[in-house]
Amino acid sequence: MSQDGKEPLFNTMAVIGVGLIGGSLGMAAKRFNLAGRVVGYGRNRANLEEAVRLEAIDTIAESARECVIDADIIFVCTPVRTVAQSFREIAADLKEDAIVTDVGSTKRTIVEQAAEILPDGVHFIGGHPMAGTEKSGVTFAFPELFRKATYVLTPQENTNLLALSKLSSFVDGIGACCEVMDPLAHDKSVAAISHLPHIIASSLLEVAQQSDRDTGKSFRLAAGSFKDLTRIADSPPEIWRDICLTNADLICEEIDELSQWLEQFKSALVVPDEQELMKLFEQGKHIRQTVYLRSKRA
Amino acid sequence: MSQDGKEPLFNTMAVIGVGLIGGSLGMAAKRFNLAGRVVGYGRNRANLEEAVRLEAIDTIAESARECVIDADIIFVCTPVRTVAQSFREIAADLKEDAIVTDVGSTKRTIVEQAAEILPDGVHFIGGHPMAGTEKSGVTFAFPELFRKATYVLTPQENTNLLALSKLSSFVDGIGACCEVMDPLAHDKSVAAISHLPHIIASSLLEVAQQSDRDTGKSFRLAAGSFKDLTRIADSPPEIWRDICLTNADLICEEIDELSQWLEQFKSALVVPDEQELMKLFEQGKHIRQTVYLRSKRA
Repeated sequence: MSQDGKEPLFNTMAVIGVGLIGGSLGMAAKRFNLAGRVVGYGRNRANLEEAVRLEAIDTIAESARECVIDADIIFVCTPVRTVAQSFREIAADLKEDAIVTDVGSTKRTIVEQAAEILPDGVHFIGGHPMAGTEKSGVTFAFPELFRKATYVLTPQENTNLLALSKLSSFVDGIGACCEVMDPLAHDKSVAAISHLPHIIASSLLEVAQQSDRDTGKSFRLAAGSFKDLTRIADSPPEIWRDICLTNADLICEEIDELSQWLEQFKSALVVPDEQELMKLFEQGKHIRQTVYLRSKRA
Repeated sequence: MSQDGKEPLFNTMAVIGVGLIGGSLGMAAKRFNLAGRVVGYGRNRANLEEAVRLEAIDTIAESARECVIDADIIFVCTPVRTVAQSFREIAADLKEDAIVTDVGSTKRTIVEQAAEILPDGVHFIGGHPMAGTEKSGVTFAFPELFRKATYVLTPQENTNLLALSKLSSFVDGIGACCEVMDPLAHDKSVAAISHLPHIIASSLLEVAQQSDRDTGKSFRLAAGSFKDLTRIADSPPEIWRDICLTNADLICEEIDELSQWLEQFKSALVVPDEQELMKLFEQGKHIRQTVYLRSKRA
């Protein structure tokens, strides 16, 4: 029982993969009285010891199986393309009625894998906390990481509503804003607002490098806007490769869509059509102001 | 004579168009003892009175002609497509050996216009201070705006070297980093690192809006990276229309270049070719780290 006398939401919470997200989930669960005890498992022993020292987890499990055997809720926080392997490692040892969730950046593949691999009698609900920093690793974990962040849950038609309600309470409890979406809508959204921007940032850097080779000075002329636009290219390449590979079809659609808009700008420039160019810039500004006024109201 | 007993670099400085840039140049000139007196001219009387109140200029001129008649250095700070008109208004009244410069975001057109319009006996050198904020207007001007900013000068083969040296001293004096470039190299550089990013930001907002219409929630999932990437779309559309129209040919080349990189990502996703995708993200990260390590050393 916690200091304020209330029972925690879950008795035992398991975290498979204790990095920035997994570690922060453990810290938040303890801080906000959402789990009585947090057990962690991962491949790197030194990292797990660091997680205990930072109070991200209470106990180190010697295996994925040992980690989940008493757990009421299991957060699989391994990279998006190793989630299926984690499911296989824990499937046989999950408690009846345990809730299993993940934190992967794409959801269609993982939801399908869960349906295939996890046993009946446990409740899987895909999750995606839209939080993070350019830093990775438990060293950078902190319990407030999810405050005001959007946290998507992707239940399906057959999802147990009590399990969904408990997981939503957890999400609320760590200070995040829960959004329920179907996996396809989620993946389509992140293709446009997250994955495409990463591809743009890398592509723009290539264009700028060629320009710098031609002029000798392009990068010296780069101001804050260029720095802002390309910041996300600092993220770990292997993570973005894997995320993009699990959402390739939808990302390709968004690339085509972007190319069409770029062509519209080009047409307006070639004619030149002043009114059309003005309209294009005005629309961009209008959309942005609508979005960020909306989020201020929220 | 200034308080520290040294003569200012120029006796009289004229500013045609007293907005964020023109006003900040006036403030900086006075702060750093670069001009004995700053005369300002613009179309909006109330704005000029505000400029006097903020000590961006000392005196309001009643016309462009009156503004430049005693000036040793003239900063034409009107929008890029009205610079030629400003040149016409001042051409007949410039002092022999006066230095004329501008602050336009593109340089090829303005340098040509100056050669056509300005009389022999005055020294024109194109300029582009790479400083600014999303805010415009003299209200937001401040003398430190140019500190550590790149300030491009585009002299030509026949430029008087004494005039170039004096203008460089002014640029150094306001705390900026002077880069001498030819107008074409400048325009090519900014096409890649400034104009293309603006077009990208507007295009990405259109793509995201369509996605939001399809899924109902895309914008709610947008995180800091999307906000950073699209910030520049908040800039005034008419300014960006005009800048882009004076650099259309080079911007179209950069759009084509970008499209080719986007197609490379798409190909890697369609195959899918994991190694190629990894290589693309690694290259982007490598370029960015090289650029921003370099700028830290500078």
